[in-house]
Amino acid sequence: MAESVERLQQRVQELERELAQERNRRVPGSGEGGGGRIRIEKMSSEVVDSNPYSRLMALKRMGIVSDYEKIRTFAVAIVGVGGVGSVTAEMLTRCGIGKLLLFDYDKVELANMNRLFFQPHQAGLSKVQAAEHTLRNINPDVLFEVHNYNITTVENFQHFMDRISNGGLEEGKPVDLVLSCVDNFEARMTINTCAPPLVVAANIDEKTLKREGVCAASLPTTMGVVAGILVQNVLKFLLNFGTVSFYLGYNAMQDFFPTMSMKPNPQCDDRNCRKQQEEYKKKVAALPKQEVMQEEEEIIHEDNDWGIELVSEVSEEELKNSSGPVPDLPEGITVAYTIPKK
Amino acid sequence: MAESVERLQQRVQELERELAQERNRRVPGSGEGGGGRIRIEKMSSEVVDSNPYSRLMALKRMGIVSDYEKIRTFAVAIVGVGGVGSVTAEMLTRCGIGKLLLFDYDKVELANMNRLFFQPHQAGLSKVQAAEHTLRNINPDVLFEVHNYNITTVENFQHFMDRISNGGLEEGKPVDLVLSCVDNFEARMTINTCAPPLVVAANIDEKTLKREGVCAASLPTTMGVVAGILVQNVLKFLLNFGTVSFYLGYNAMQDFFPTMSMKPNPQCDDRNCRKQQEEYKKKVAALPKQEVMQEEEEIIHEDNDWGIELVSEVSEEELKNSSGPVPDLPEGITVAYTIPKK
Repeated sequence: MAESVERLQQRVQELERELAQERNRRVPGSGEGGGGRIRIEKMSSEVVDSNPYSRLMALKRMGIVSDYEKIRTFAVAIVGVGGVGSVTAEMLTRCGIGKLLLFDYDKVELANMNRLFFQPHQAGLSKVQAAEHTLRNINPDVLFEVHNYNITTVENFQHFMDRISNGGLEEGKPVDLVLSCVDNFEARMTINTCAPPLVVAANIDEKTLKREGVCAASLPTTMGVVAGILVQNVLKFLLNFGTVSFYLGYNAMQDFFPTMSMKPNPQCDDRNCRKQQEEYKKKVAALPKQEVMQEEEEIIHEDNDWGIELVSEVSEEELKNSSGPVPDLPEGITVAYTIPKK
Repeated sequence: MAESVERLQQRVQELERELAQERNRRVPGSGEGGGGRIRIEKMSSEVVDSNPYSRLMALKRMGIVSDYEKIRTFAVAIVGVGGVGSVTAEMLTRCGIGKLLLFDYDKVELANMNRLFFQPHQAGLSKVQAAEHTLRNINPDVLFEVHNYNITTVENFQHFMDRISNGGLEEGKPVDLVLSCVDNFEARMTINTCAPPLVVAANIDEKTLKREGVCAASLPTTMGVVAGILVQNVLKFLLNFGTVSFYLGYNAMQDFFPTMSMKPNPQCDDRNCRKQQEEYKKKVAALPKQEVMQEEEEIIHEDNDWGIELVSEVSEEELKNSSGPVPDLPEGITVAYTIPKK
């Protein structure tokens, strides 16, 4: 009996030691609960090491943004939380956006480790769940709403549209922007049926890049550049500074960044697209006169990409033919986004 | 006695439960040891979800890179593990670089959360220690060597030079590239005294951007774009594909990306610089004749920035005057890098 007590006491000590080790291990390196930071009620410009917003609020004192705090009033939906979408979400989270809505139906795999954001220990988790966990830890001031489904099915599309229309910062109000970070045209076209305002950053359809038995190549570099340019333009659009690019391409092989502007096709097959074009015209006519945007080139877009301007690494020709295979395409990243013209 | 045994047994059960919970918590979300992935002996092109290299190795089958595995033979030093350096390190880690050497003397602060990579729970840790922990978990195949000191002091500079000269993949061999991701000219000039080959990506001196009582503003977007462009060019240089940019600027306000080429100043005050210019000329003369690089503009650089080409967000004029204050500079990120001309 005495021996048994001694053994149990030893076991208790052992377990207590292990538990303490485990918890010590958890706090500094894990990002689990305890290690994060507390919520911050009001964004401050104070220049102290403990203020996560000091270097963002400095944009005001530097005369670049007049009202940085306004970032907290916006809700942004990101469709596709892969190579571009995950980094886009992280950037907006760190910038202190009001609310993020994430849509994706995929799981994290080790094969995704060539891009940024996700880490090996998250393999097997849904992308939206893994992302929410990491993002909430980075900035608990942001509101998150995540949906682990494919938006292109009829049933999910209804729900998706409902959340775009009602999932704003205040429930019942629409989101302020939808960022399309998908890798296929079905999802892209589905997103296009949403009413603008809409910003789109899309990879080219992965299918057009794949050869038999080969997966599309991608690099963390391209993803970082593309997400960075996208979110930079989102910030310029929402916070009203600098010049928003309507189309910006990135050719990673030559470091070439073509820009252009595109018009919707007035004879578009899509009735909804033509209707939105009419509504857009009325909206523009009602606006006070503004300075004319510099447009380097105007292209009538042939698809129902109303108002969509592309950030692409491939040529316009390749893009138009993108339902067929594009051989030897450098690195395989095409990106597109729209900023609704104010 | 019987009661004591029962109590101890209960305590053991309780502790075992707590420990199990703690470990469960740790594995999915933490990135601590157990959750990561095992080391991979040989890079494979196999297209399976469990292969972290499949989408990088696909660059071979797509005909872009002839020998992607060669990435494992290179050692790269990153000086400055801040906004640009940390993302640069993460990209190279995910690409499967052979060895990374990190140099920084700073600590992670909550005020750094406006950029990518570091997370709130790492506040207080040294940047190199926090970075090593995260990076090793992302890719345990990479070798890491970190130094938590300021390279500009006499003593540390000796050690720094020794590691640049001997800290290659095989001890005793030099590193293949030095990436300068520092935010001040002292450190930049210190790095310039290293012999090339050298790649530099530097923010402009933070001091020139700060006003009294204001910290320099920065955004995660700019950091992502700059690190992405830098590492893309590092990959092109090391793996011999695409066209390496010698100078690439990024103006975040207008999405403008100027490129140019710069020559060192043959009358430079720095004796070491003039010596290196001579050595470089001999090296070039000894090379087999290659196609002439397209140069959009040639500028004689006035400092001892031998062979340094800049990626900057400010104009050349502003850069030349950068020891004084630069008022109303948009967002305050200047980046520079060199790729030694082959």
